[in-house]
Parts: sequence; structure tokens; C-alpha cells
Amino acid sequence: MNAHFDPTYGSALRLPQPYLLFLADTVDAGFAKTAFGLRDWAGDKCVGEFAIGATVSTGLPVMTPAEARAAGARALVIGVANSGGVIGDSWIASLVEALEAGLDIVSGMHARLSEIPELVEAAARLGRRLIDVRVPPSGLRVGTGAKRSGKRLLTVGTDCALGKKYTALALANAFAARGVDVDFRATGQTGIMIAGGGMPMDAVVSDFEAGAAEMLSPDADPGHWDVIEGQGSLFHPAYAAVSLGLLHGSQPDVIVVCHEPGRQVMLGTTFAAPSVEDTIALNLELGRRTNPAIRCGGVALNTSQLDADEAARVIAAESERLGLHVADPIRGGAAFDALVEACLK
Amino acid sequence: MNAHFDPTYGSALRLPQPYLLFLADTVDAGFAKTAFGLRDWAGDKCVGEFAIGATVSTGLPVMTPAEARAAGARALVIGVANSGGVIGDSWIASLVEALEAGLDIVSGMHARLSEIPELVEAAARLGRRLIDVRVPPSGLRVGTGAKRSGKRLLTVGTDCALGKKYTALALANAFAARGVDVDFRATGQTGIMIAGGGMPMDAVVSDFEAGAAEMLSPDADPGHWDVIEGQGSLFHPAYAAVSLGLLHGSQPDVIVVCHEPGRQVMLGTTFAAPSVEDTIALNLELGRRTNPAIRCGGVALNTSQLDADEAARVIAAESERLGLHVADPIRGGAAFDALVEACLK
Repeated sequence: MNAHFDPTYGSALRLPQPYLLFLADTVDAGFAKTAFGLRDWAGDKCVGEFAIGATVSTGLPVMTPAEARAAGARALVIGVANSGGVIGDSWIASLVEALEAGLDIVSGMHARLSEIPELVEAAARLGRRLIDVRVPPSGLRVGTGAKRSGKRLLTVGTDCALGKKYTALALANAFAARGVDVDFRATGQTGIMIAGGGMPMDAVVSDFEAGAAEMLSPDADPGHWDVIEGQGSLFHPAYAAVSLGLLHGSQPDVIVVCHEPGRQVMLGTTFAAPSVEDTIALNLELGRRTNPAIRCGGVALNTSQLDADEAARVIAAESERLGLHVADPIRGGAAFDALVEACLK
Repeated sequence: MNAHFDPTYGSALRLPQPYLLFLADTVDAGFAKTAFGLRDWAGDKCVGEFAIGATVSTGLPVMTPAEARAAGARALVIGVANSGGVIGDSWIASLVEALEAGLDIVSGMHARLSEIPELVEAAARLGRRLIDVRVPPSGLRVGTGAKRSGKRLLTVGTDCALGKKYTALALANAFAARGVDVDFRATGQTGIMIAGGGMPMDAVVSDFEAGAAEMLSPDADPGHWDVIEGQGSLFHPAYAAVSLGLLHGSQPDVIVVCHEPGRQVMLGTTFAAPSVEDTIALNLELGRRTNPAIRCGGVALNTSQLDADEAARVIAAESERLGLHVADPIRGGAAFDALVEACLK
């Protein structure tokens, strides 16, 4: 049983699913991580892959856009995240082919689909949609801070890019496996493509940041959980505004702090990474503003750079040191089960 | 001697000055507060006023756009802030007349000049500019947190709309009066029109919030001060993201906390207003991230709802209670002089 990924909230983004994954001409697996992420976390929403010279593969069935449409696909997703976020000129004919086959196009690239005249023309002619998941929905409003029903968990971090999305996905799936009514709420482009909807928080105008987060996790049944993908870090000199608006608007009952052991310096800066303890303390201090009952459910460590023995040793040592449940959600195991229970209790 | 208002920084907004103030058909003085603010704080940049049926007046010379242009004006500023921020249909002919007279048009209304076809057509035909000060400049970048040269003061608040702009303007003028090399840095629409440039921080995409603040107060001579207009409050459930990005990006050496005695509830919410002490503590705590030497210069009270005796009593009592310099910058006097000295010391 998986967490719900069908977005039913306000006017957050909603994407057509299932997908055909477009690998274009990618020869470097690192540039296809969007496609791999979709295969790994939303495999039931991916009918196949489509390439024009790529040497990497997701292992999903190879299909033309027409074959994918016949198999139920509703959108082609650009599964590439190349340097610069560029949509190659050589891809355009294939993207038009997808539109002609009856598929919408979903992109998280920096380059906007809506700025490519051939695509705009074809989409208008065919009545198809071009969806840039970096573009927030219209109709955002300022936050109110008013308490909403249902329960919320937000993953927060000592830094950027260390596992907040995957921790949220793993927790949402674990909640669902225990029979909990749960939605994963995506706040970044890959998460939004996995979930089929969400709010690109870093692209929202700052005046609406908390309000957009409020829209993303609306009132729900008292026993329902939203597990919300965190962004940035309250300590990051560039991105703390995003993190604070998301924290205030999410009004989480529970935070899980994500950290990568050994990270000394914050991404893209010369600033020292904060400690896990300081990260817990500051998120609880600021989070109390919109949810006085906020608590820390535990810590998620990204141990992908460590071998299994070393990871187990670090997890045990950190749990002992902090007096909290600590686990690597990707490794799972008993430590992760205990973290999940601590969040739900 | 006034503080510098000529913006020389990066790619923040820069407005053509001096201005002709357009009062349109305003009959309610409350709706002309933009014009009054410009008269009061940038009077040397205003050559006259122009109305089409207004019963309110700034007291500046009445001029047609052609007369204003002949007197040196470079832009007509819409000096009205009506409910809804609407540009009236009956104003269009006068705005076109201004363009034809050789003036650019500057607006802080919600309605965008660029969405009015008659104005877009006339501006294109005449080679004139339509400047919406709510629209951030292009080319914003993410913050770095890198230390910049020169000194910075940021006004911060217990809440919105209680005097952060006027406190910054009064401090900048007082610094200049003491021979200090100072720039007022505007972050909201009225401030930007007063300064002739700035950064509309609440309209900046959240990922660039701190970076936009960094751009607004660039490297300067060691003895130079930027006095930066604050926005929102770290305690406001809707706007804290704006406040934190501005705090991090401004890396202030000194904060001055603005407060209105008697305000119990935060603007537009049911949240209790924070205390001055908590506001000082949280701004210093979070501000240390980008400037470990941050300190509180004192407190600015908005006593506009009190009579002179009551105001003096409250200012003295708060100063005694907090152990800080406290003043109403609009009332000035010895208390304000002491606050200014405390900021500069």
C-alpha cells in the first residue's frame, strides 16, 4: 500500500498521470535522475520510456508516444536534468510527436516549455497542455496562520540536498503501510512529478510563501496525515526564507530533521553546517508560532556515502547522543520502524 | 542635508526623477497618502501636482504634464492608493497626455500599467517607460551570505504597518545631518518611489529573497551606512519569510525595532503581537547567521495615537523598562538624537 499521491487540494498544481518518461539523448546516468526518481517512487504511474539516442535506461518498456497513449499514458515527462536545464533543439520534433499522440508535456527544466514557439503552436492546435512544474499556480493568497484540521509532518534539514524529499516519501509510504490515511505533499519539482501535484515553494513570490504552504496541506480528517517535503534550511543564508515560510504555513505537528553525517559546509556557501541539535531547536522555536504543539519525531540520516557497518554505527551513536530515534529511511530496518512509530505516536 | 536617494546599486529598480504627482479624482485624503508621503519625504524631487477633479491637494504647484516637463519633471507618479489599487478608466487620457508631454509613468498600484493597452501603445509610440514599482527587476540571483563592506542598519518590527519605513527615512536623514555618508534603501513601493529606486522585497520570488536584499545594499566604503527599510515581522504567520530573507541578505550591523504601543494583535490575524524584547532577541538570534556582530541600536515607537504628554511618558517608561534608547522618530527631540547616536556609536 502506497501513500496517496493524488492531489485533491485547493489550487496547487495537478499533473496528468500516468507518464511516459522521456530520456532524450542522455548518455550520463546522472542527468537522468528525474526519470530514475519517478521509476523508483512513482513506478505505478510510469507506463514506459522513450528515447532518441539515449544510452541510459530506466528498465521500463520502450514505447513510442502513440504506444504509450494507447497504454493509458496522459503525459510525457522530460526525465532529464542536464546542466543548465536546457531543452535541446533536437528534442522538439519528439515533443511535438508526443503532443500529436495525445499526450500533455510536463517539464521541470529551467527552460520553459511555454517559451518554445513550436511547442506552443502545436499544443494550441491540438488542445494539449504544456506544464512547467517550476511555475506556481495562479490565485495564491497570503497566509492566515489559522489552525487546520488533520495532522502534519514536515521534513526539515541542516542543509539543502541531503534527503528531505526521500525521507518524506519513505515516511509517507511507511505510514500508508501501517494503514494510516496519508498524503505526500510535494514542494519541489521532482517531488511534484512523483506526487502528480504540489507547490514549487522556491518559485513562489515571498509574500505568498506561507499562504502557498497553507494551500498545499488543507483541512483534513482528524486522523489524516500530510507528510510534507521540506526545502532548504533555516540556517542557509540564501534559502532560509523558503524554509521559514514553509514551516509557518505547514504548521507541522511533527518535524523530522534530515542530515548528512560529515557535511561540514552548507551547500554553495562557506558557512559551517549547523548541528542537528541546533536545527531541532530553531525549527521548534519558530514552528511554535503556528503550532504550539510541534515536536521532533526524530532524525533521518543520509548515509549513502557510508558502508552498511559504518552507517549502522553512526546511526546508533547519533541516537545515543541525541536521545532520539535516528534512522536512514533509504536503508530502512528496525531503526526506521522505530522512527516511524515515534512520529505517529 | 538629506540622505542620498540616488540608487547606484546593481540592478535594483531605478526611477526617473523629479516627479509630477498625479492625484487623479481623489476626494478622500486617505487615498492620497502616496502623494503626501512623497511630498513629505522627497519634496525636493516633486515639481508639482496634477489632478482631474481631485479635492485633495499636496500644496505643491498645480501643473499640466507639459508644464511639469518644462519645469524638469521626468515622470508622472500615480500618487493615489485607492481601495483595490485600481487605475481608473477616466485617468487613461491624462496618463497618455503625460506620456505625450515626455514623462514616464511610475505606479505602485496593484493594476499593472503594462496591462493597459492604451498606455502600452502610447509608451511604445513615444519611447517612454511604464514602471510598475511592484515588479522586481530581472536578473536576481540567490544569496551568498558573503560579508560586504560598509555598515548597515535595518529597521525591524513587532508587526507590519507600524513605522519601519518612516523610521528608516528619519534615521537616514539624521545620519546625513551629522555628516555621515548614508543611503536610504527602500524595500516597499512607497519607499521605492521616495528613494527613486529599491527592491520590492515582498514581490521577489522566495528563492531569491536574500539575494535580492544583498543586491540592494552592495559593498560600500567602510564608513558608509545603508539604512534599510524593514518589512513584515519574523513573528507574522504570513510575512515572516519576507522578513527573514531581508534580515539575512541585509546582514545588518544594527537593528532598530519598531513598535506601536497598544497593538495587541498582529495585522490581519488573530495572533498576539510579540513583545519588543522577544522581537529584539529573535532578530539578533537569526541575524547573527550572516553578521555575528549584529546589535540592537534601540527602539522606535509609533506614538501617533497618543498626545504629546502621553507619548513622552510611554517613551520614558519603555526606555527605563528595556534599558535601551527609545524614541518616536516622527516626534524627534532629544530622545531621538540619543537613539541616532546609539545606532552610530
